[in-house]
Amino acid sequence: MSARILPRLTFAFAVALACGLAHAKVVTKSIAYEQGGTKLEGYLVYDDAKSGPRPGVLVIHEWWGLNDYVKNRTKQLAEMGYVAFAADMYGDHKVTRDPKQAQEWSSAIENGGLMASRSKAGLDVLKQQAQTDKSKLAAIGFCFGGSTVLQLAYSGEPLAATVTFHGGLMPPKEDQLSQIKTPILILHGAEDGFIKPETIDQVRTSLDKAKVDWYMVTYANAVHAFSNPDADSFKIPGIGYNEKAARRSWAEMQDFFKEKFAGK
Amino acid sequence: MSARILPRLTFAFAVALACGLAHAKVVTKSIAYEQGGTKLEGYLVYDDAKSGPRPGVLVIHEWWGLNDYVKNRTKQLAEMGYVAFAADMYGDHKVTRDPKQAQEWSSAIENGGLMASRSKAGLDVLKQQAQTDKSKLAAIGFCFGGSTVLQLAYSGEPLAATVTFHGGLMPPKEDQLSQIKTPILILHGAEDGFIKPETIDQVRTSLDKAKVDWYMVTYANAVHAFSNPDADSFKIPGIGYNEKAARRSWAEMQDFFKEKFAGK
Repeated sequence: MSARILPRLTFAFAVALACGLAHAKVVTKSIAYEQGGTKLEGYLVYDDAKSGPRPGVLVIHEWWGLNDYVKNRTKQLAEMGYVAFAADMYGDHKVTRDPKQAQEWSSAIENGGLMASRSKAGLDVLKQQAQTDKSKLAAIGFCFGGSTVLQLAYSGEPLAATVTFHGGLMPPKEDQLSQIKTPILILHGAEDGFIKPETIDQVRTSLDKAKVDWYMVTYANAVHAFSNPDADSFKIPGIGYNEKAARRSWAEMQDFFKEKFAGK
Repeated sequence: MSARILPRLTFAFAVALACGLAHAKVVTKSIAYEQGGTKLEGYLVYDDAKSGPRPGVLVIHEWWGLNDYVKNRTKQLAEMGYVAFAADMYGDHKVTRDPKQAQEWSSAIENGGLMASRSKAGLDVLKQQAQTDKSKLAAIGFCFGGSTVLQLAYSGEPLAATVTFHGGLMPPKEDQLSQIKTPILILHGAEDGFIKPETIDQVRTSLDKAKVDWYMVTYANAVHAFSNPDADSFKIPGIGYNEKAARRSWAEMQDFFKEKFAGK
């Protein structure tokens, strides 16, 4: 028997044993909460077979509302070992496939100055969970959700990591610069027509002024909503799925989390 | 004994056994070769305790020449399990710390149209090694080396992956567009004053036209040579080390290799 086979057999046996005895047991829960008088219902997911507190990730949905896409992403985070909470930015189980309706609901939040406060209410729910290690919190968002987590970051929330997936980008306000306390990862489609190059420059300049630890990844060919396998089904010009960008951006977030949750 | 301890003990034992029996044994070799009548000497590194062919990585040095920085990076690649070859772009053991000398040597190569052919000679050496899986080849470069691997890519070399670390960027020529056969990862310092924003736009437009699989990472605060811990010692404005960018870019390359060497 070669010198290499014995450790491999032993390892294989150990893995088989471990798998047999310790399955992941992902549980999902609806959590009712409120913000500013609006009743909300978010979606909590964690691995119940895992013991002890673990990093928490707040997940903010696209403008369509708290739909299956964001629920699936939340489940994926739980499978990675995090406790994840998909916050509800709208209330009343509002979910749509109609872009006019989505535009109305998301604009009400954005123009109403509610992005930071409503997402923070979701963060508070996450913090209250027994599974959550409150010293290791991150926020991610997709599209409208990406803009939302930026606003949460600009409001001064001291997160370990903030990640925007093809979010609408905007710079912080001048009086917010000194209060930004979170590293920011911007994942951006090179062909995202919803964001002007000048806006990107403004964001970069402001984040530099605020001394934020940021970096940005630009994916060739990717447009708005590139991370969502369902994006093409909406048949909206400039909105579409990009498999490479989706895969790479999700991996990028994982690398960022590993770095930030380890305190680097 | 809890259900979790037995698999952990077995795993730990297996790991201990495996480590005791299979140390990495990184070997380095100088390899003499030539290109266009110029004698060259490159630096080959691989793990001799590993059996069988493995992906090969060509490494192109900064304008300083084949110095310790690039040798260390080449060793790191070997420790990851690749066979890595630091090519010699100058010959005569030319290494310097004098930017005027470095400028002279690198310009002679760039203006002499030798970037692609001289780096290709290094790639040929890599291909000749018994350790090299010729179906899995990548090229990486730093600064001048980054420009060089772009030229190698533009010349039509069918690499699995091409990675430029704070390389001088330039778009391919019109008549090269149809021949580019490699995915390209551009790792760029947000404050790299040696590269104009317009040039980046030209590169993006041309790579899109050529249907190249590319993406770009932009690191806040990082300037030219950000990956080199020795960069500050040269005391040249606009050239300096950035620990976060160095760490993240090296990890990004590893992710790209994992993807591309797996054929995704």
